Amino acid sequence: MQNIELTGRHLIAGEWAASSGPEFRAVNPATGDRIGATYHEAGEREVARAADAARKAFQLSRAFPTHLSARLLDGIADEILAAGDPLLEVAEQETALPRPRLIGERQRTCSQLKLFATLVREGGWLDATIDRADPNRKPAPRPDVRRVNRPIGPVAIFEASNFPFAFGVCGGDTASALAAGNPVIVKAHPSHPGTAELFAGIVLRALQKLDLPPGLFSVLQGQGKQLGAMLVQNDAIEAVGFTGSLGAGRALFDLGARRPRPIPVYAEMGSLNPLVMLPGAIASGATLAQRLTESVVMGCGQFCTKPGVVLLLDSDQSRGFVGALRDRLASIGNQVLLNAGIRDKFVQQIQQLTKVAGVQTLLPPAPSGHAATTASLLQVDAATWLAREELRHETFGPGVVIVFCRDAREIRDALDAAGGNLTSTIHADRGDDATVRELLPELENIAGRVIFGDFPTGVEVGCAMVHGGPYPATTAPATTSVGAAAIRRYVRPLSYQSLPDHLLPPALQDANPLGVLRTVDSAITRDAIARPVA
Amino acid sequence: MQNIELTGRHLIAGEWAASSGPEFRAVNPATGDRIGATYHEAGEREVARAADAARKAFQLSRAFPTHLSARLLDGIADEILAAGDPLLEVAEQETALPRPRLIGERQRTCSQLKLFATLVREGGWLDATIDRADPNRKPAPRPDVRRVNRPIGPVAIFEASNFPFAFGVCGGDTASALAAGNPVIVKAHPSHPGTAELFAGIVLRALQKLDLPPGLFSVLQGQGKQLGAMLVQNDAIEAVGFTGSLGAGRALFDLGARRPRPIPVYAEMGSLNPLVMLPGAIASGATLAQRLTESVVMGCGQFCTKPGVVLLLDSDQSRGFVGALRDRLASIGNQVLLNAGIRDKFVQQIQQLTKVAGVQTLLPPAPSGHAATTASLLQVDAATWLAREELRHETFGPGVVIVFCRDAREIRDALDAAGGNLTSTIHADRGDDATVRELLPELENIAGRVIFGDFPTGVEVGCAMVHGGPYPATTAPATTSVGAAAIRRYVRPLSYQSLPDHLLPPALQDANPLGVLRTVDSAITRDAIARPVA
Repeated sequence: MQNIELTGRHLIAGEWAASSGPEFRAVNPATGDRIGATYHEAGEREVARAADAARKAFQLSRAFPTHLSARLLDGIADEILAAGDPLLEVAEQETALPRPRLIGERQRTCSQLKLFATLVREGGWLDATIDRADPNRKPAPRPDVRRVNRPIGPVAIFEASNFPFAFGVCGGDTASALAAGNPVIVKAHPSHPGTAELFAGIVLRALQKLDLPPGLFSVLQGQGKQLGAMLVQNDAIEAVGFTGSLGAGRALFDLGARRPRPIPVYAEMGSLNPLVMLPGAIASGATLAQRLTESVVMGCGQFCTKPGVVLLLDSDQSRGFVGALRDRLASIGNQVLLNAGIRDKFVQQIQQLTKVAGVQTLLPPAPSGHAATTASLLQVDAATWLAREELRHETFGPGVVIVFCRDAREIRDALDAAGGNLTSTIHADRGDDATVRELLPELENIAGRVIFGDFPTGVEVGCAMVHGGPYPATTAPATTSVGAAAIRRYVRPLSYQSLPDHLLPPALQDANPLGVLRTVDSAITRDAIARPVA
Repeated sequence: MQNIELTGRHLIAGEWAASSGPEFRAVNPATGDRIGATYHEAGEREVARAADAARKAFQLSRAFPTHLSARLLDGIADEILAAGDPLLEVAEQETALPRPRLIGERQRTCSQLKLFATLVREGGWLDATIDRADPNRKPAPRPDVRRVNRPIGPVAIFEASNFPFAFGVCGGDTASALAAGNPVIVKAHPSHPGTAELFAGIVLRALQKLDLPPGLFSVLQGQGKQLGAMLVQNDAIEAVGFTGSLGAGRALFDLGARRPRPIPVYAEMGSLNPLVMLPGAIASGATLAQRLTESVVMGCGQFCTKPGVVLLLDSDQSRGFVGALRDRLASIGNQVLLNAGIRDKFVQQIQQLTKVAGVQTLLPPAPSGHAATTASLLQVDAATWLAREELRHETFGPGVVIVFCRDAREIRDALDAAGGNLTSTIHADRGDDATVRELLPELENIAGRVIFGDFPTGVEVGCAMVHGGPYPATTAPATTSVGAAAIRRYVRPLSYQSLPDHLLPPALQDANPLGVLRTVDSAITRDAIARPVA
């Protein structure tokens, strides 16, 4: 990392800006060494500059031809690849995530940007809808009304610690917000400020190559709560995207709701991700234990979709399965978490749970080094799990809790008590069908994604994905933060009544110059239209 | 009204329930007479009963075949017509809205219900999306992921005073919430409890004829703030639809956001609806003054889309136009408003404004009778209008403010200061094109619907309508409360990963048994699909 130049500055509307707030540096979680540049907390002045620039840039970007947003997203993806090894090297040192994982995540991040570029070009997200006039309708003529989605304005996005690329400066939220034509201000995560700075440079280069307004994009560095609060409360900001803890997410949501003019705070705040394994599935024994282990320790257990609780019917077979799971988790060895704070919280939380009467500790977490721990496995019966609320909190790290249930009814009660989740999963074979049908409504009730025979880690970036779910998984169950539908967070519909053709946005003009799919008088078509005459 | 039997009771899950809260009766706004049955405020017990029943009913309705919701909506529309004159008679006495208006509104209400029935049958609202598996993808196979919109659960809906039918017990919010399969609890408006009770009976009969769970629908009567607060805070409620004042809407929004588990409160809270008239349009003089007058006094000025402020370039021609407008408004005579409280607030608010330095009173409102007033017309220059915030508050009633601007720039500033609106309107001819283009971005920025050469009153119920807009017009600018897209307020997307076909909801099954349009691998089709094999 010696050869990689980092400025320690914020990117504000095209300029590398210094600030005089408290300083901080990244820490290598594997060694505890302070690394990279010294950063200074952004303050009111930096927030105001970024917000003013974003507001001004929006007056241009709101009228961007759609292909321009698409070219920007493609350009960012190209610049990410062009940034090459230094990006991987800095991220590796700041996060302790292994190189192959980071290479995969980089690939996913670029695919995500390109997905939104394609989406923007195709124009389906515009939801262009035309109800043509009917001059002969009685008792009054029907006017021409046309609707299209428009960008909402400057968006504040909070980087997550656990996906420095895919939920980072150029991650999914940024891709969807920019796709729709919104300016973006990113609050960098203090665990990887150098990675964030490199991504800031990447976006700046992409903007410059297309000669786009630099106010479209700023990245502010900071580790305190004040910076985030100032961003959410700034009058220029129209929406917020956040991925992180329940405490931080809810605090930002509250700030957004309490503004004089409230704004939506789309917070994704993690999840228990309950996993039901019925007898027919457990028959596959060792293989299933291996796959579950891989899912639990993927990214060192720091996925928001990590299966945190596994619900089993009590039986000898189930107990055998848990033994196999224990052996595999024990063989994983040390996991270096993203920072010492996450590791400490994980170990302390598990240690608290081991003291709860009725909890059996099959594997205690053993901390080591600056931020490392071994995996943890606890076991409890459903009655205890239902009675003790603290057992139902997410543990962010390589740990999982087994809950033994007496019958399907108890599984259902446990699912119900698991609250809002990003995912719910069931493993079963055809012989379990009646039980699956009994549990399915509850699996649906509590989650944004229901999975059968697979594992929740690994969130496909596609058109059908929902990465969301009932509170407290998110603050907005009607939206997703991954996949094509994520763009809906950052648009609002606008209707035009009786506008002359030349004043309409291109997507709504009679000739359909963008060639987008439109709903015209309830039928879906790409055809040009004519205006009816009386 | 003597012959029309009213029970004075709440409808709670199929039963006509009495309560012991404070009593109230409707008042005929034309006479001040107390009329109809005596109602008692619903309390905690009634809210709990309705909410528990709704929660239970949801376990059935969430799995309704789509045609069942459609039949319910059609059934309600049929029962409304079958209810005949008594419904009109009670509404007329409770609201003082004239019979022809009520007949028109009844027609609109039935059309609205039937629109959603059609929508539900067609299934476009389901947004069914399928990303098929790719077993050969490298480095890892792509799983099968399918997404569909599902109902969100029990919805609380607050009746508006100004549209006793179209935004009433069986109004747009109810139609869209039921369409998606959600149970509904309506808080009746205390200005027309008898109308609300008749509608409650209408829905009950429709439910009974289809043998649907009575817990799907309750109507609670009350005039205090506590009832609304209890509803929004009840844990069973998943979303709230409200149409009314800014103060009440914001209070409910805050309650929804502050719950342990926050829920969306979709509040539509009225609007200034600024209307720009450029020189080319004013040339039509008298006709335009007549059309504007009709729009201002439509429903006695009690439309949330009433044009409250008209922005004109100062000129002799403009002053002539205002004179013509004054004459027409003066000729309107007495308007009976919905209740004495609304009339008093309107008259007092205008009287306050007439005292502001720089405000010219062209027509003062003259109150008379129990709830009547004449129309009001004020005139002011843009500098004063921009300086005095109270001039920019909505006046709910037959009043309009003329603002004279020096140039297009001042019109733009005035639009900007008008804040969030349901609508913004511009009247111009081809000669004004440059000015229209200059103003259009601002007209878009501040509104949910931009209108050219027409008037904002009269909200078409179609696929392209947006009845919404930036705060304070609504608490949720990304949604609409009128038109097909309103159903999106009451659904949430759910993804299914790797589910066997027989466990998927019908809309997502391979064979497409519902025959709905689906997005399959990014292409829109009604075709059945096959699952790829490795």
